Amino acid sequence: MDKLYVIKIGGNIIDDKKKLSSFLRSFASIEDKKILVHGGGKLATKLAEKMGVEQKLVDGRRITDAETLKIVTMVYAGYVNKNIVAQLQSFTCNSIGLSGVDGDIILAHKRKHPVIDYGFVGDVDSVNSPLVKKLLDQNLALVFAPITHDQSGQLLNTNADTIAQEIAKAMSSAYEVKLIYSFEKSGVLIDADDESTVISSIDPVYYKELKAKEKIFAGMIPKLDNAFAALNSGVSKVIIGKAENLEELLAGRSGTAIVNE
Amino acid sequence: MDKLYVIKIGGNIIDDKKKLSSFLRSFASIEDKKILVHGGGKLATKLAEKMGVEQKLVDGRRITDAETLKIVTMVYAGYVNKNIVAQLQSFTCNSIGLSGVDGDIILAHKRKHPVIDYGFVGDVDSVNSPLVKKLLDQNLALVFAPITHDQSGQLLNTNADTIAQEIAKAMSSAYEVKLIYSFEKSGVLIDADDESTVISSIDPVYYKELKAKEKIFAGMIPKLDNAFAALNSGVSKVIIGKAENLEELLAGRSGTAIVNE
Repeated sequence: MDKLYVIKIGGNIIDDKKKLSSFLRSFASIEDKKILVHGGGKLATKLAEKMGVEQKLVDGRRITDAETLKIVTMVYAGYVNKNIVAQLQSFTCNSIGLSGVDGDIILAHKRKHPVIDYGFVGDVDSVNSPLVKKLLDQNLALVFAPITHDQSGQLLNTNADTIAQEIAKAMSSAYEVKLIYSFEKSGVLIDADDESTVISSIDPVYYKELKAKEKIFAGMIPKLDNAFAALNSGVSKVIIGKAENLEELLAGRSGTAIVNE
Repeated sequence: MDKLYVIKIGGNIIDDKKKLSSFLRSFASIEDKKILVHGGGKLATKLAEKMGVEQKLVDGRRITDAETLKIVTMVYAGYVNKNIVAQLQSFTCNSIGLSGVDGDIILAHKRKHPVIDYGFVGDVDSVNSPLVKKLLDQNLALVFAPITHDQSGQLLNTNADTIAQEIAKAMSSAYEVKLIYSFEKSGVLIDADDESTVISSIDPVYYKELKAKEKIFAGMIPKLDNAFAALNSGVSKVIIGKAENLEELLAGRSGTAIVNE
């Protein structure tokens, strides 16, 4: 089975030109098949401010109203996506920028919630894995912006971690898939403020223990839940770590490995 | 040889939701291979106003400075491109939104001019026709935003008419290509204000005559020059006409046919 890397790059790296460029150089040098999933960092928030569009939060969750959807579509699928692809081209890594709407690759539905109306937020239904494979077969690196659609013409804003996980899961019947969540931290930390407290490996038993002792930063829990779900659906390895150390992460010499046993 | 339609849709239609939707429905129903090239209409100008970015014109030509490039990348490759693709998906036309940077499909260079610095405006060098063919072979309609790149990581703003022409030319060795410029008018008009004065056919001799008599609206001349250049490079047919009449245009019952003899 061919190897496939599905790599999510966290928002903060997107905002740092130098770090992003160095990350993309490492990504370009991966010889196996590869997919990059990105968000938009602070650019969407900045643009919203400039345009006078107020960010709505309900219970700490960002609501995607029509104007916000327009902004994230422009920033994620336009500005960020095309600039990443242009940089990869400059590193002679032929790549193609996509969103979930392109090629009907990621079908989603508007989130249903008994109390909160999240607006145009999409939960993933399916991934068009045959087309993803055909694009990878053209020796293209695929670069995904986290925008999906509902088949009735509506774009939807979808969590980039989830997109990475869903693609990784869907492709695991055709490839040996490694899923990498890269961001500004060195991995899952015992002490969120101390980069030296990286946990090198977490299995389900240890995860339970960490959660019970409240040793895990709340923001990390969805990421870890995603990671275990991916492992249970055929993904061969999940690694969480620092985007700047991509090569070390790929070599298994850095970050936190999420393992099933 | 398989048929391929390369259809450019003019800006004004993009701004009109109802007309755009009707156009896309007609486009979706084309059974042959098909490529759509779009611009961004007035949305880019509106966004620039909202963001306080001044439009710079030199000799009547819009200059693409760094901020304007950012805006057109967001609007053309993000908002407009993904919304068109989402609508096509709703008409069960599987399509993929692209810019010239994706798959290294359209390589360009920053325009060199002895006097005017156009900023980040790109003139096309080459089209990656093998990849375009492979994507068309997946039964995808291709939807292009007029953004290209220079291989060194720089995005460039490129005229959408030119993109349509260059793609049509490049694909003419693999397909019988018909190039259609659709916009708000019924075709090339003798009297720009009278829709009933459509010229049904223009050959090079007649074109010379029309130009000599100044019977042609200045804005139409680059379009017609493009059209004849395309015919001379293997494109089988060029038609100019009203976007709302797409089906009639395709059937040869409407618009202006540009012919070589």
